[in-house]
Amino acid sequence: MGDISVSNGSGKISSPLNGYRKSCWYEEEIEENLRWCFALNSILHTGATPYQDIALLDTKPFGKALVIDGKLQSAETDEFIYHECLVHPSLLFHPSPKAVFIMGGGEGSTAREILRHKTVEKVTMCDIDEEVVEFCRSHLLVNRNAFCDPRLELVINDARAELESRNACFDVIIGDLADPIEGGPCYKLYTRSFYECIVKPRLSQNGIFVTQAGPAGIFSHTEVFSCIYNTLKQIFKYVVPYSAHIPSFADTWGWVMASDSPFSLTAEDLDLRTKQRIKGENRYFDGKTFTSASTLSKAVRQSLSNETHVYTEGAARFIYGYGTADRHEQE
Amino acid sequence: MGDISVSNGSGKISSPLNGYRKSCWYEEEIEENLRWCFALNSILHTGATPYQDIALLDTKPFGKALVIDGKLQSAETDEFIYHECLVHPSLLFHPSPKAVFIMGGGEGSTAREILRHKTVEKVTMCDIDEEVVEFCRSHLLVNRNAFCDPRLELVINDARAELESRNACFDVIIGDLADPIEGGPCYKLYTRSFYECIVKPRLSQNGIFVTQAGPAGIFSHTEVFSCIYNTLKQIFKYVVPYSAHIPSFADTWGWVMASDSPFSLTAEDLDLRTKQRIKGENRYFDGKTFTSASTLSKAVRQSLSNETHVYTEGAARFIYGYGTADRHEQE
Amino acid sequence: MGDISVSNGSGKISSPLNGYRKSCWYEEEIEENLRWCFALNSILHTGATPYQDIALLDTKPFGKALVIDGKLQSAETDEFIYHECLVHPSLLFHPSPKAVFIMGGGEGSTAREILRHKTVEKVTMCDIDEEVVEFCRSHLLVNRNAFCDPRLELVINDARAELESRNACFDVIIGDLADPIEGGPCYKLYTRSFYECIVKPRLSQNGIFVTQAGPAGIFSHTEVFSCIYNTLKQIFKYVVPYSAHIPSFADTWGWVMASDSPFSLTAEDLDLRTKQRIKGENRYFDGKTFTSASTLSKAVRQSLSNETHVYTEGAARFIYGYGTADRHEQE
Amino acid sequence: MGDISVSNGSGKISSPLNGYRKSCWYEEEIEENLRWCFALNSILHTGATPYQDIALLDTKPFGKALVIDGKLQSAETDEFIYHECLVHPSLLFHPSPKAVFIMGGGEGSTAREILRHKTVEKVTMCDIDEEVVEFCRSHLLVNRNAFCDPRLELVINDARAELESRNACFDVIIGDLADPIEGGPCYKLYTRSFYECIVKPRLSQNGIFVTQAGPAGIFSHTEVFSCIYNTLKQIFKYVVPYSAHIPSFADTWGWVMASDSPFSLTAEDLDLRTKQRIKGENRYFDGKTFTSASTLSKAVRQSLSNETHVYTEGAARFIYGYGTADRHEQE
Repeated sequence: MGDISVSNGSGKISSPLNGYRKSCWYEEEIEENLRWCFALNSILHTGATPYQDIALLDTKPFGKALVIDGKLQSAETDEFIYHECLVHPSLLFHPSPKAVFIMGGGEGSTAREILRHKTVEKVTMCDIDEEVVEFCRSHLLVNRNAFCDPRLELVINDARAELESRNACFDVIIGDLADPIEGGPCYKLYTRSFYECIVKPRLSQNGIFVTQAGPAGIFSHTEVFSCIYNTLKQIFKYVVPYSAHIPSFADTWGWVMASDSPFSLTAEDLDLRTKQRIKGENRYFDGKTFTSASTLSKAVRQSLSNETHVYTEGAARFIYGYGTADRHEQE
Repeated sequence: MGDISVSNGSGKISSPLNGYRKSCWYEEEIEENLRWCFALNSILHTGATPYQDIALLDTKPFGKALVIDGKLQSAETDEFIYHECLVHPSLLFHPSPKAVFIMGGGEGSTAREILRHKTVEKVTMCDIDEEVVEFCRSHLLVNRNAFCDPRLELVINDARAELESRNACFDVIIGDLADPIEGGPCYKLYTRSFYECIVKPRLSQNGIFVTQAGPAGIFSHTEVFSCIYNTLKQIFKYVVPYSAHIPSFADTWGWVMASDSPFSLTAEDLDLRTKQRIKGENRYFDGKTFTSASTLSKAVRQSLSNETHVYTEGAARFIYGYGTADRHEQE
Repeated sequence: MGDISVSNGSGKISSPLNGYRKSCWYEEEIEENLRWCFALNSILHTGATPYQDIALLDTKPFGKALVIDGKLQSAETDEFIYHECLVHPSLLFHPSPKAVFIMGGGEGSTAREILRHKTVEKVTMCDIDEEVVEFCRSHLLVNRNAFCDPRLELVINDARAELESRNACFDVIIGDLADPIEGGPCYKLYTRSFYECIVKPRLSQNGIFVTQAGPAGIFSHTEVFSCIYNTLKQIFKYVVPYSAHIPSFADTWGWVMASDSPFSLTAEDLDLRTKQRIKGENRYFDGKTFTSASTLSKAVRQSLSNETHVYTEGAARFIYGYGTADRHEQE
Repeated sequence: MGDISVSNGSGKISSPLNGYRKSCWYEEEIEENLRWCFALNSILHTGATPYQDIALLDTKPFGKALVIDGKLQSAETDEFIYHECLVHPSLLFHPSPKAVFIMGGGEGSTAREILRHKTVEKVTMCDIDEEVVEFCRSHLLVNRNAFCDPRLELVINDARAELESRNACFDVIIGDLADPIEGGPCYKLYTRSFYECIVKPRLSQNGIFVTQAGPAGIFSHTEVFSCIYNTLKQIFKYVVPYSAHIPSFADTWGWVMASDSPFSLTAEDLDLRTKQRIKGENRYFDGKTFTSASTLSKAVRQSLSNETHVYTEGAARFIYGYGTADRHEQE
């Protein structure tokens, strides 16, 4: 084949292609009337599990991208924003997190960030979809060490069933679930009864719960973010919503952290604990970043404080999209 | 024609169309490998001035959208974020802004926000492109009152030439210019010599200069934001960069505010002055919002403080796109 | 506004726009995995009738385009191919066509072509959708004369009901209906019983029936073309399928002509009759063109002769798409 | 990994994916204002040779597709139309073709069709781009036998140089070159002087030359088809243009066949020779198909007979697109 440049086994393209450069695109309908499109280098892998359709794409603007049920989950170049925001606030606010439970998180990046905390002795990652976990373990090199860390216990199960079956408590429980989309596997894990009856009883003293909470942009925060916030407020004394813009998501993203102990550290405290407890250097998160992220804009603050809806199984809210979990339930 | 719903002279569509709903799209290449697409209701107007190509579109996700040289300038549903952020911080930090100069601003929204300030006695808006100004005056109903306000002086001229020709000083000078794109009319108004020799001499005591400063996302801030910040730091004692996510831009946007007087108000001070001085209610901006907006994330803070490039005419940086100002120069 | 070029009341854009040129697109899913996209000048009109969604677009590659239920019906630059092929063969093969009935045809182009025939004394055009007819009468200037011709009788009714209610016979009956799409208003007018019980009894001696028959490409002809052909073969002695590539449809299109009298003219005969009977010059159709159009390729000929399916109301076939006629039936 | 369906080393995808189905697209600008888009299964290979950018895509609507310099060359599901039309007419009209020369043809499909002719003793395929040939030999299984046929002589060279260097003559010379696009490697092989000084002298008595001749649709035939036809008319006594709609090209395609001996077989003669000489069954071509293909529509016939332009190196015409051959020449 001479010196022709082709994609090799690892999916890397070694030559930039002029004529071809912009011919192949990944396209996502973020909303019905809004599309976000990435030029593609290649389609690395695609597959269908009993729960979800999955794909790993090599995109030009954001590197490798994991797509589940037609929605971008995580992109190589900026997943650090999402995962640092999901993990570090709760672990730093906790006086000494030893045992952490991840609901979902099959991609491995959440475990990777948790395992950077020196205090952590045990991470239980509970994902329902074995095939997604295996897919990510095989293909996402950046998380390879995390998957091999002896402190990681990997459980394939429904997070609700798993938490119910356990007696031990956790210092931090992290919800790294797919968004609550209609037909998706996860919306039942955003309800009041789940938080009250399953999550809270499994938190140790000073325990903190944090969950990803969907889009939190100036308009999009009313889809599920304000409602997840309001639902958690029914159950926990202290609830902190925060957000950050994630370029590959074309939106500001939200997380909500909740506890019965107050969150009372300054930016400087957070920086100090970061230095003491976290191995390596954060790329996105530090004390000031958290000050900014947890200080919501006027419009979002107002509609969060006006939110009255509480998530229950009978009164769910969904973001745009449709999942394939029915396939499994119908089996 | 019976009760058929069609577009009328004013370009309004009165019926939502199912089969047709997603057939027509506006598409922008934000970067070479990244596209952002809005479903369209209609194309209200298009035109070409000697300086720029302009279009007014009615989009489904963001309402009416003004597009100049193929780049979205402003969308009906979220332009308030951009314009409140551009105008209110500088006018509130100033002890009593009476005379304000807008470089560019032909759309009218910047004048609209300035004119809400009760202290303001005179707004000079200087845009080079008469046709864009007329286009917006005719089509953007939301700014109709601003265009009629007796405190507004509208000048059609190059902002540099206009400022040079004036003797009077301004309390606040606002740069509401198009991004510095190659071939566009504006990049010379982002240079060190322009700030030093033209802008600063026209500021009265305690005067404040603020400019829109391009994309300020975690990756995109290195295109021009960090450089505009660093350029202003060469000239002014106090420089405050801040940013906010604007959904229709698919990015976090940046502004930089600069003065030789310190910016030393708390969030509460800003809220008090807002109440005292601004007519009507802000939708986006308040003291806490500014705290968040002016507290940049770790990554952006670091690269701003590491930036060494200074904008000069011989060493400009451009964002993705290409303008049509050559047309004018070639005439 | 100076010399700025903008769209005026009639929707014409007077200036080509460089920067803006390729920002707005019409996009049609020809099949689920196949898209056909035209750059747009403007969206002239949109509307929803009780039967169908309609839009008139000004496209760059094909001029004004009529879109019904999200599917392109007709484009200014090449509708002559479709309408010359639909009308002229049957009218020329008939010894002396005086009375012609159009099922559908609300656009007016079919009537326009028929009215060019000097022998024709009466054209009855029967369309179910008054609003589409009025829309086209107002907006399609090219058909304005046809709509005013005293030989044209315009009836708003279901074509089946109208034909049933009439006693008189027609020399040629032309099916200019929308494609048989699921949920669309037309699929019942492609069935065996309709042809046998309604159409044939209303044909005078030597009468000819012709219908548009959907896509007829090397793969797409099996969607409905072969089946319409086979259905007509059950009812008429002589059946002639023919086809032509229509660029704006991104496909070869099909028509089927049927009679109990033989079709026995040569290409030269057709050219002679064209000269004697048709006012003005055809752009697409002549004798040789018909020789080519009615000589199908090996693959299509074989699958037409192997087709066994007959269209009945209980066993319809549909092309890709979904209509909105339910709206009407549910009222 | 359980039963998850993923792409394996050979790039095959074994499962259809619902949620993922329409996320990835190949997009080609057929003209500046016209796009043709195929949903993608995968990007099998991409590469850049010194002459051209190449890609092999697995598309949903048309199977595997070979793309060179951003333009679709050939798609698995309908390449038989192009290649049967290119090869069989000239070989069947020739009384007994033994030696055939292919200019270009690196894909291998042209050789495959030629080698089905029992009379053929030697096929010389001369392509300038070794890497494309190797790429196709490796990846296009359908042509594997052709590449191994002992009657095939494969030469890597410029077709002009190769023909000049040879003394022997050929019964049929076939131009299977890329379209004449600006900057592409092939436009010099469509000129009058090339046909006169290089091609014609290398044809044996009764020899036939045939070339692919670009788009031949009702509008697109004026790009290069009419001009190639007119250029060949200057050099050969008998010239036959013909065309066929190729779905994946979204257009009718053209070929021109030329000789100093007359083309005087009927459809029945062609069918008889097909039966006698060609192994296996054609899918597209037979006598009637050729009657249809070589009987052009009125509009195309007229503009071919009115064409006055003759292709010379100094007065070339190009179709939309831009090649990368400069890269090579600059080396």
